[in-house]
Amino acid sequence: MSDSDFDRETAVEPTGPGRWRARVSDGWNIAGNPNGGYLLAIVLSAMRQLGPHPDPLSVTAHFLRPGTGGVDAEVAADLVRAGRSLTTVRGSLVQDGKQRLEVLAAHGDLAVGPDHPMLSTTPPEIPPPEECVPRSAEEQGVDLALASRITTVLDPRHAQAGRAGAAEVTGWIRFADGRPPDAQSLVVFADAFPPSIFGLLGRIGWVPTIELTVHVRRRPAPGWLLGHFTTDDLQGGRMIEEGSIWDSEGQLVARSRQLALLLSGDT
Amino acid sequence: MSDSDFDRETAVEPTGPGRWRARVSDGWNIAGNPNGGYLLAIVLSAMRQLGPHPDPLSVTAHFLRPGTGGVDAEVAADLVRAGRSLTTVRGSLVQDGKQRLEVLAAHGDLAVGPDHPMLSTTPPEIPPPEECVPRSAEEQGVDLALASRITTVLDPRHAQAGRAGAAEVTGWIRFADGRPPDAQSLVVFADAFPPSIFGLLGRIGWVPTIELTVHVRRRPAPGWLLGHFTTDDLQGGRMIEEGSIWDSEGQLVARSRQLALLLSGDT
Repeated sequence: MSDSDFDRETAVEPTGPGRWRARVSDGWNIAGNPNGGYLLAIVLSAMRQLGPHPDPLSVTAHFLRPGTGGVDAEVAADLVRAGRSLTTVRGSLVQDGKQRLEVLAAHGDLAVGPDHPMLSTTPPEIPPPEECVPRSAEEQGVDLALASRITTVLDPRHAQAGRAGAAEVTGWIRFADGRPPDAQSLVVFADAFPPSIFGLLGRIGWVPTIELTVHVRRRPAPGWLLGHFTTDDLQGGRMIEEGSIWDSEGQLVARSRQLALLLSGDT
Repeated sequence: MSDSDFDRETAVEPTGPGRWRARVSDGWNIAGNPNGGYLLAIVLSAMRQLGPHPDPLSVTAHFLRPGTGGVDAEVAADLVRAGRSLTTVRGSLVQDGKQRLEVLAAHGDLAVGPDHPMLSTTPPEIPPPEECVPRSAEEQGVDLALASRITTVLDPRHAQAGRAGAAEVTGWIRFADGRPPDAQSLVVFADAFPPSIFGLLGRIGWVPTIELTVHVRRRPAPGWLLGHFTTDDLQGGRMIEEGSIWDSEGQLVARSRQLALLLSGDT
């Protein structure tokens, strides 16, 4: 058993063909419920046992109901297609008889690929981690047990509720226990920053995600990751947040997009 | 039966609980196989029969194998969660015993939503449709039966293979038979432009999509739609293409992101 919180707390134990049990930790809670990316990482632990491909290239999760920390979960994963270069799997996470997540993912091997012309983007310039501001539960107006597992420090321009002047958040992120990032963990980091709308609208409380899709683009180098998240599309209380994550060598390692709800009465 | 090609050729006929049959037309072929967005629209025809919510808010399709035009398909759709404001459904499309698509979608009602502050983006400025250039099968180097169903005219700056100087394509799109666009059809339009990488790399042939996610943001007004698609992320032969579609009133109506393959030996 690994001594990293992430490996230990996303582990799954087989209970039958395509079925596993997991213990959902309450250490990843935000506003009283487990972070969605953390629950998704538990499902991915089961999914990657169904094929030879190690890296989650495309992961889509629909968040049906909040999960519960400190309670066991039943995880299911079923093969959709076993291909030469891709394994496509769907999965679910159930607690107390109610489904919390539905997941559809394609795994592949990021170490394999033709030497085509490459396009990429460079990270925004922000102060180094030691000059950034620790993410504050008070500032965001929610309980943040998640801070025991993930350290997030924000560009000072984006750290105060309603003061960024834009729906934008930039900062550095890593596991609190020093575990280096890998392809699996990028799915968690893609969902662990404060909502970017927070910098524009202020203390908005919990922003429920309807659906999150993460594309892992490259295995990250050790060290801090730099995340940049923006929202430029909010209609009828539903918004799209887009994110990019670069590793400590400045390489683009993940992209994310999510559809989330801005709850009535919070602004 | 509607006299629009789209309605007639995406119709599904029930064969049992959660099961339908569809006739896949060859009128939507590109490079010899049906356009992925068209196959997806067939699955959505079945999915939206499972709940009261009319609009596809979030649709993710994994394209497992190319489909075949002119052949029947079996469509399955199963309820994941029936909620008050969202119906979440997964589905599949099978031809000749082989699964071609796996789909996960949330439907809702775009006419319902709180009157929150709104963020949106404006369309890029391009020439009007009559000054744009019809999409050319010869220029792209593929067969384009799809042109019998969808009319696409491109910004002249983006219409020639390898001449755009960037992985960017902008243009106008509509059904060839004049059917007005609706929320369902935006999923097809989001997958019907030439690949944006074409403007940078030239005649690249078929660009297989691994996964496509479309967020429908608003029901479109009648008339031409304006699409803008870019690729700034190509690594190991895998690329992310992002798109936005605005309606004839300049309102943002859909966003898309797809993970696609640039096949070896084509450049």
